[in-house]
Amino acid sequence: MLRDPSTKYRPFPTIDLPDRQWPSRAISKAPRWLSTDMRDGNQALIDPMDAEKKTRFFDLIVRTGIKEIEVGFPASGATDFDYIQNLVRSGRVPDDVTVQVLTQSRRDLIETTFASLRGAPKAIVHLYNAVSPAWRKIVFGMSKDEIRQIAIDGAKILRDCAAAQPGTDWRFEYSPETFSTAEVDFSVEVCAAVMDVLRPTPDKPIIFNLPATVECATPNVYADQIEYFGRHIPNRDAVVISLHTHNDRGTGVAAAELGLMAGADRVEGCLLGNGERTGNCDLVTVALNMYTQGVDPQLDFSDLDGLIKTVEYCTNLPVHPRHAYAGELVYTSFSGSHQDAIKKGFAARERQNDDFWEIPYLPIDPADLGRSYEAVIRVNSQSGKGGVAWILEQDKGLRLPKRLQADFSRHVQGLADQTSRELDADDIWRLFERTYLSGDWDRLKLQAYDETRAPNGDRIFAGSIAEGGSVKSVSGRGNGLISSVLAGIRDGFGIELEVVDYVEHAIGHGTDVQAAAYVECRTVEGVTVWGVGIDEDVATASVRAVLSAANRVGS
Amino acid sequence: MLRDPSTKYRPFPTIDLPDRQWPSRAISKAPRWLSTDMRDGNQALIDPMDAEKKTRFFDLIVRTGIKEIEVGFPASGATDFDYIQNLVRSGRVPDDVTVQVLTQSRRDLIETTFASLRGAPKAIVHLYNAVSPAWRKIVFGMSKDEIRQIAIDGAKILRDCAAAQPGTDWRFEYSPETFSTAEVDFSVEVCAAVMDVLRPTPDKPIIFNLPATVECATPNVYADQIEYFGRHIPNRDAVVISLHTHNDRGTGVAAAELGLMAGADRVEGCLLGNGERTGNCDLVTVALNMYTQGVDPQLDFSDLDGLIKTVEYCTNLPVHPRHAYAGELVYTSFSGSHQDAIKKGFAARERQNDDFWEIPYLPIDPADLGRSYEAVIRVNSQSGKGGVAWILEQDKGLRLPKRLQADFSRHVQGLADQTSRELDADDIWRLFERTYLSGDWDRLKLQAYDETRAPNGDRIFAGSIAEGGSVKSVSGRGNGLISSVLAGIRDGFGIELEVVDYVEHAIGHGTDVQAAAYVECRTVEGVTVWGVGIDEDVATASVRAVLSAANRVGS
Repeated sequence: MLRDPSTKYRPFPTIDLPDRQWPSRAISKAPRWLSTDMRDGNQALIDPMDAEKKTRFFDLIVRTGIKEIEVGFPASGATDFDYIQNLVRSGRVPDDVTVQVLTQSRRDLIETTFASLRGAPKAIVHLYNAVSPAWRKIVFGMSKDEIRQIAIDGAKILRDCAAAQPGTDWRFEYSPETFSTAEVDFSVEVCAAVMDVLRPTPDKPIIFNLPATVECATPNVYADQIEYFGRHIPNRDAVVISLHTHNDRGTGVAAAELGLMAGADRVEGCLLGNGERTGNCDLVTVALNMYTQGVDPQLDFSDLDGLIKTVEYCTNLPVHPRHAYAGELVYTSFSGSHQDAIKKGFAARERQNDDFWEIPYLPIDPADLGRSYEAVIRVNSQSGKGGVAWILEQDKGLRLPKRLQADFSRHVQGLADQTSRELDADDIWRLFERTYLSGDWDRLKLQAYDETRAPNGDRIFAGSIAEGGSVKSVSGRGNGLISSVLAGIRDGFGIELEVVDYVEHAIGHGTDVQAAAYVECRTVEGVTVWGVGIDEDVATASVRAVLSAANRVGS
Repeated sequence: MLRDPSTKYRPFPTIDLPDRQWPSRAISKAPRWLSTDMRDGNQALIDPMDAEKKTRFFDLIVRTGIKEIEVGFPASGATDFDYIQNLVRSGRVPDDVTVQVLTQSRRDLIETTFASLRGAPKAIVHLYNAVSPAWRKIVFGMSKDEIRQIAIDGAKILRDCAAAQPGTDWRFEYSPETFSTAEVDFSVEVCAAVMDVLRPTPDKPIIFNLPATVECATPNVYADQIEYFGRHIPNRDAVVISLHTHNDRGTGVAAAELGLMAGADRVEGCLLGNGERTGNCDLVTVALNMYTQGVDPQLDFSDLDGLIKTVEYCTNLPVHPRHAYAGELVYTSFSGSHQDAIKKGFAARERQNDDFWEIPYLPIDPADLGRSYEAVIRVNSQSGKGGVAWILEQDKGLRLPKRLQADFSRHVQGLADQTSRELDADDIWRLFERTYLSGDWDRLKLQAYDETRAPNGDRIFAGSIAEGGSVKSVSGRGNGLISSVLAGIRDGFGIELEVVDYVEHAIGHGTDVQAAAYVECRTVEGVTVWGVGIDEDVATASVRAVLSAANRVGS
């Protein structure tokens, strides 16, 4: 059993704010957005992004329309420093986009930070130090005065470094880190001290980022903290209040939304919610939540699938199938009554010619995100790649590689369009057989083969392969079985293929086991073809797979 | 670009409740919990659970301490009906657990529903019909009066069916489905009409489930709806208000929490948040959120990893690495400053001997959930299975099957404990080599081999294998290469293995490509051993993998 929590955990103290205004408000305009994918997101990856991935991610963020991008921690080492210095000089940063970088409050780190931005027309330098009691006590062993002094000292160095590099339009962001678990009055006090140094104005405001570094209470408490801060910070019109929530309690999006209702001006987060531990606030969800309420988020997610692919590639983390808006299952209904209601909704929409979106079970039009209605109303066998792959795994024990799933889904789509009816599991298996497995319709058919070993260890493939009415003997040599078969079909039939990847696995177990081999090949023209082979012998399955790929060339 | 949403989407109308009380409240006690994993969760699966999986899931729910379990939709067909009828008669339902079933409001369906529960000592019958304007207009084409009448008619049939089966202690739940998008006053009106028929009392209250069938607004709006409903429903003390949120806006957990603060008594949801589209409210997160506030959820998640495994097995859906509390990355910090703070927190805890949990970046003690500190403070190379697998993939191109990752992680843990220092990528690769790949320390070493084909198509393996100082010639016959090698080592060395699974893939591409083969074998004693083989030839890699497995026997 879980132990009694009351002896180990304490309730988070609530904020005394009986006249809070945020619960009666709604979000009615887009905030400023800051993507920290390349900083908070990147530092939380098992495998941090290299320069190539960072560049792809940067371009992606720019395409979404986000205008403020935290690109790293330049004083953390040469990798970040060089990347940032190259980025600001590359011409890759559009005129209306501002890069932001993070630094701790130490002279050497701040100086390195400014050096990394040499040549930038404008930039935001983001200074932070943790202010909460636990950090003061456990991590730093410092008093409130000492903690406040760290912020003041950092702000002075920022001011001086900025003055020394006048070619850049500098803006400043300060985070009282661990704001969510700190006394709000102390956060206000520290921020006010920073303002005394940096002297922001309504034209050149300071950004105060108020992070839920660790999410420690229900989201209404964070909203109270934000509203309280906004009421008590001096010169409110010279301040941009920025939200930075994490998702430790699964409510990071809610906290950001209630924080906006509480008067914040800006939201920091990551695309699809990457970030330390449970992740940062997911900017896609917050923006599309606004969108479905008729509020323009001023961001573009009309190619959501493209965005997902890039994020998954760069972070090496999957998007969950039930992720709001982005998951592959979120526009799919498997229940008959849901499907029926959705169909009626589409029919009514057509009939009534009403511009407003009102479809049962669908809070957003998938077409707005570049997805199709098709995926919505189809069931199991047809609910996208995942569904088809599942059918093949459930019924036939085949575990298709992801890229083969994508290749096959085009064929499935084609058949679905052709037949205009729901495809069942049998349809899908027959289509798979016809598409990849050897059959009567194939150009090349394996009759028999043998492998032998040359004295130097090379493999020699000797096979008889039927083509049209006649059978041809071919042979090939290579450092392995697959390369020897490829050599054989190149010399015998003039089909030249290079192997990009292959995967093989067992189907079933015990004595009835079979092998399934999948080979991804590339032609000299750069066209990708997939081959699949199934046989009770692993080696023969590979040979069949290569032949299957050869049969796909030009098909 | 996304089109202008204001022409297509409308803001959700807020509730006029200026004297709302919930924002000043906190959650201070456990609600009643209802798991709908086997109903709402199951109906949203690509591959719905069969009886074996349902039984496993039922037992899991019981182990967590949840006392009310919605087990299906008995009138949906023979599968659900038979499962439920078997379940209630099986003796599997503990005395303190009540099963619940769902039905639409039609006489034949309700009668079938009651028939499925014959023999149950107690049960909750859950009646629903949709009440919101969109459903009234689009799906049913009915007036408010007609919709209310459906509920009244259903309640009468419930009452009569219950009277006809007096051996069961019947309780009732009614859902004004699509509550979240309906006029709250109308929901109150329909529920009051149902009460007039069923006449609940404080001793035998009716459960009103108020679903966010589709999440359509920020979570504070749902809380307002709940508080409003609670204030306006007659005989409040004869009513249990139940919450049922979905996650379309990514705020289903927040909505449930604010709903509890607004006066609800019960939470419906799924373990780890499975369910239609974006999923239901995640009961694990809501319960552990209470736990970290010193509130006993009266549920047991002290073996969270075991729970995750069962849920993943039954649903065939993954738990995301950043899922609150449950994800594999959520107790891991890759950033040096975070790690440092966490270490200081653990040190302070030891020094101060303070019972209260106060560790930077960790809102909960992983040990309470059956996880270890180890995983918390380790970085990349050591952050659990995932990290090690990543290292091997990044550095060596090896894509280890999940079960091999688990097998190897035991070895990694052993070495880590032995050396008491951080392991780096090199350590891990050397350990992998020593553990699985052929080396000087192996009993059996492959010298050379040949395969030939028997006239009946069987494979014949003939190899020379070194054992100790001498080389032995062995041969074996089988329907494939692997089975022939297995026969060879059985006859030659008395090692008997059965193949459970194998996977093979390419490392790199072009002419330098190598093959990695992974074989999972079982000994006659039922012990699992893994073998790995790497070779430029796919067939030889398989042979090496089998030999590697043989070398693991008894090691």
